Amino acid sequence: MNDSIKAFVFDVYGTLFDVTAIKKECEELYPGYGEKISQTWRSKQVEYFMLRQLMGNYASLYSITHDALTYALNENDLQSSEQHEKHLLEAYLQLPLYSESKEVLTQLKDKNLVVFSNGSHDMLDPLVKHAGLEELFNQVLSIDDIKQFKPTPASYHYALEKLGLESYEVLFMSSNGWDVSGAKSFGFQTAWINRKGLPLEELDLEPDYVFDDLNGLLKWK
Amino acid sequence: MNDSIKAFVFDVYGTLFDVTAIKKECEELYPGYGEKISQTWRSKQVEYFMLRQLMGNYASLYSITHDALTYALNENDLQSSEQHEKHLLEAYLQLPLYSESKEVLTQLKDKNLVVFSNGSHDMLDPLVKHAGLEELFNQVLSIDDIKQFKPTPASYHYALEKLGLESYEVLFMSSNGWDVSGAKSFGFQTAWINRKGLPLEELDLEPDYVFDDLNGLLKWK
Repeated sequence: MNDSIKAFVFDVYGTLFDVTAIKKECEELYPGYGEKISQTWRSKQVEYFMLRQLMGNYASLYSITHDALTYALNENDLQSSEQHEKHLLEAYLQLPLYSESKEVLTQLKDKNLVVFSNGSHDMLDPLVKHAGLEELFNQVLSIDDIKQFKPTPASYHYALEKLGLESYEVLFMSSNGWDVSGAKSFGFQTAWINRKGLPLEELDLEPDYVFDDLNGLLKWK
Repeated sequence: MNDSIKAFVFDVYGTLFDVTAIKKECEELYPGYGEKISQTWRSKQVEYFMLRQLMGNYASLYSITHDALTYALNENDLQSSEQHEKHLLEAYLQLPLYSESKEVLTQLKDKNLVVFSNGSHDMLDPLVKHAGLEELFNQVLSIDDIKQFKPTPASYHYALEKLGLESYEVLFMSSNGWDVSGAKSFGFQTAWINRKGLPLEELDLEPDYVFDDLNGLLKWK
């Protein structure tokens, strides 16, 4: 038990919410392509915000999510339409939580719970609201306020400033290897929510904790 | 025909040399896993240099290539050994050229031909030498000299300084969408060698030219 933890900071996409669930909506609009579209959509979304950060060419994650969807449809030679893209982007604002997310957050509600995401507020706020999580979080932080994506040190520094803590007092949770690596490199304590049973990233940045899902956090209850 | 071009600058991995050919050596050591290992190996290699650039945590591409191989073996629950990894890394120094690469470069040999790669000299120089291309290039440039990976503006700026030209006088060739996008964003003219017939990247950075392979460059012969 680590008593130094003064904030529990959660990544959103893939960590609290299941981004792969969007394949259902993709399948309905494009039968036979749900899996392929949703996989490319997510991988291009991540690639594009990293590339824009590297090139110094910022766009909001909402805009990038739209671009990544366009690419995913093009890759599969599927006819896009404004109506279809609007429908799928709206579904992205209503992604389902993982089955244990709400119960775990509720059990930890006396702690200082915070969201910290690459998502811009125009996608993040409706998502948190739709899931009924608003009351559970003390802060909902978006890198859009400084336009520096995770995993840059500048992004985690922004969160730290908003928390008003020392970096070792923060426990940061993410299912994304790149995110938990960036947070560790910056100096946060980290818990990797390794939902897919993947190997450790080979980046010399071992997380402090590894859990199969968010239930692992209940040791701090 | 664009007479303003004073240097033809080539990316290496995936552009001149076939990184997917390594699946043959992977298959020999790990029967049934050649394709899977080689795919993860390449994708993690690219992810890791981007992540290290974003985190401000540089390592040479040779070291990253080793790390990415370790991950790829772990992902497939395969037993690694120093001997196997050494063998595969040595194979990476002897990747085959694409079938048309040498002929096209030879036909353009009166031009100012330059290599510009994320590869460190310890992997780049043996590769170029093994393929017998040394005489064809005026310069072999590596970002390892400044420790800033493509697609950062700093990396292309380094190449530009070494060339002593204006950015619009450079034609940069790459098969990698992220690379050709970064070069375009910086201000180079760009030719995307779209070997796999992929859709355009949705980054508002359309390349000046798109060719199926390097033969498209013979218009400047």
